[in-house]
Amino acid sequence: MFKFSVTILGSSSAIPTSDRNPTAQLVNHNDHLFLIDCGEGTQVTLRRMHIHFQRIEHVFISHLHGDHFFGLIGLISSMHLLGRGKKLHIYGPPELKEIIDIQLSVSLTVLQYPLVFHPTQADSPAVIFENENLLVSSFPMLHRIPTNGFLFAEKQGERRIRKEILGMLNIPVTELPKIKKGGNFTDAEGKLHLNSSITLDPYPQRKYAFCSDTAYFEEIIPVVKGADLLYHETTFLQDRAANAAEKFHSTTKEAAQIALNAEVKKLIIGHYSARYDDLQPLLDEASAVFHDTELALEGKTIDV
Amino acid sequence: MFKFSVTILGSSSAIPTSDRNPTAQLVNHNDHLFLIDCGEGTQVTLRRMHIHFQRIEHVFISHLHGDHFFGLIGLISSMHLLGRGKKLHIYGPPELKEIIDIQLSVSLTVLQYPLVFHPTQADSPAVIFENENLLVSSFPMLHRIPTNGFLFAEKQGERRIRKEILGMLNIPVTELPKIKKGGNFTDAEGKLHLNSSITLDPYPQRKYAFCSDTAYFEEIIPVVKGADLLYHETTFLQDRAANAAEKFHSTTKEAAQIALNAEVKKLIIGHYSARYDDLQPLLDEASAVFHDTELALEGKTIDV
Repeated sequence: MFKFSVTILGSSSAIPTSDRNPTAQLVNHNDHLFLIDCGEGTQVTLRRMHIHFQRIEHVFISHLHGDHFFGLIGLISSMHLLGRGKKLHIYGPPELKEIIDIQLSVSLTVLQYPLVFHPTQADSPAVIFENENLLVSSFPMLHRIPTNGFLFAEKQGERRIRKEILGMLNIPVTELPKIKKGGNFTDAEGKLHLNSSITLDPYPQRKYAFCSDTAYFEEIIPVVKGADLLYHETTFLQDRAANAAEKFHSTTKEAAQIALNAEVKKLIIGHYSARYDDLQPLLDEASAVFHDTELALEGKTIDV
Repeated sequence: MFKFSVTILGSSSAIPTSDRNPTAQLVNHNDHLFLIDCGEGTQVTLRRMHIHFQRIEHVFISHLHGDHFFGLIGLISSMHLLGRGKKLHIYGPPELKEIIDIQLSVSLTVLQYPLVFHPTQADSPAVIFENENLLVSSFPMLHRIPTNGFLFAEKQGERRIRKEILGMLNIPVTELPKIKKGGNFTDAEGKLHLNSSITLDPYPQRKYAFCSDTAYFEEIIPVVKGADLLYHETTFLQDRAANAAEKFHSTTKEAAQIALNAEVKKLIIGHYSARYDDLQPLLDEASAVFHDTELALEGKTIDV
C-alpha cells in the first residue's frame, strides 16, 4: 500500500498562539507532498519539523481568511530564494493570484520556477487534481466567504499478483500489466490460470477529507461518506454553539455528528479557538458522540 | 531620562531559519511602542516575548522585500480579531496600502480600528513622525528597490529643576514651566535666582538609527552621525563582499566602517545570511573595525 499520511502543521483558529500555529497540513501520498492551507509561519514550521519544503508540489488553499494563507507568499519566496526550479501548483480562490502577483511585483521578484495557478470555485464539488493513483476534489463548505474542503481519494488500484505465484509460474514481464487489470494467464504448457487464482484484490481505496472552515453543514456528509480519515474544524465547545453558528464555525459536537453520520473511520478535530488552553474538553465532547476522535496537534502524523 | 530601548524580534535576512526570524524590531520610547519592519511570524514572536502587541501605535516598514513586511497583514488581522479600538499608524511605501487593502477585502474584513496609512518615499530624508519628545525620520538606503532607514531622535528636553531647590525655595507650580524653559525665579522675598543656579542641563538628546537593507552607502554617515546606537545590516562576511554588492547588501566590515566614520557610540549588526550558523565570525570581523559592536539576537533588548 502507498504511504498515505497527514501531518498537522497548525491547529489554531484565526489567532496563532505561542504554541499553536494557524492552519496548515501536509499530506504525503506515495511520497508526493501536498500542502493544505498555509497559515503564517508555515515555512518555519516545516523547517522545524525537518520537512524539505521544496518537495511540495501542490498547495491547496481552502479560502482567503488570513489564518489559512498568510504564510503562502513567504513559502513561495523562500522556495525561490533557495533555488527551486521545479513547478509549484497552487489551487485557490482566483483573488489569491492577484495577492501573490502584487507582492512579487513590488519586490521586483521574478520567480526562478514556474508557479502554476489553478483557480477554484466553491459552488459545487469538482476534481481539481489527478495523478496515476490519486484524485483531489474540492467541495463547498458553509462559511462567511467562499470556502472549500478537499477530498484526497485513491483511485482503484490494480489487482496484485501473489508473490509466490510470480516465481512458480514464471510469468513473463510482458504479461504482468494484463493480469494486473484482471486478465487470466496461460502458462508455457498451455494451462489456463484464472485471474482470481493468481491475484489478490486491489488495496482498498482510501480517502482523506479535510473540512475547514465551516458551520455545521449536512451537505458535507455524502461527500466525505466512509472516509478513512476526516479532519473537521471544531473552533468551539458545544456551549458556544450560538457563537460558532454566528461565525460560521462548528462545535466539537457538530464535527462529531458529521463524522458519525458520514460513517468515517476516524475523526481529527482542530482549528481551536485561542480561548482553549486545555484541549481535553474538546476531545471529550467529540469522543462522546464519535468514539474514534483524535486531536490535531502540531507535529502529529496520522496514517490515513 | 525616558526609557529608550530597542528589542530585536528578528535577526535573519531573506530566509527565516529554525531559530532566526526575519527582520523586526520594537522600539520603546517613554513607553510608546514603535515597530520597525514586520517579517513573517512577528506577531507570534511578540507573544512569545510577552509583549502586548496592542500597545504598538506606529509601524515603520523600510521596504517591500518580504522578509521585512510579510508578517504585517497577520499582525493587523490579529489586532482586529482581538478587539483593538485605537488607531494604528503605518508608514511604508505606497504599494503597501494596496497589499493590505486587497487582503482585507478578500476576507470581507472591515477593521474595527482606524488604520492610518502614511506613504513614504525613499528619495530624500524626511520627518515622518513627531510627538512631544521624539522625531522619527526616514532616509534613503542603497538597495535594489526603494528602501528607507529610520532615525529615532529625541527632541531637546526641558531644563531640569534641581530636586533640592524645589523644596528649599518653595517654587509655585505655576512657575515651573517658565523655569524649565530657562527662565529665572524671583522668590517671595524678592530674591532673584538665576536659572543656571536652580536647574540642570536637559538630558542629552539620544538617537537610534536603523539601517536595513543597504549596500555600503556613505551617504548614510552624515544622517546617523553621532548616534547613540546604530543598527546596520551585515548580511555577509567580508569574504563575500562581491556577493553583498551584487545583492545590495553590506558586509560586517562595511557596517563597522559606517559606524566608525559616523562616530556612533554603539553598533548592532544583524540581517545575517542563513548560511551562518555561528555568528561569532561576524562579530569578530565587525569588532576589529569598530570596537563597541553587538550581535542582534532574538529577544535581546539594548538601551539606546
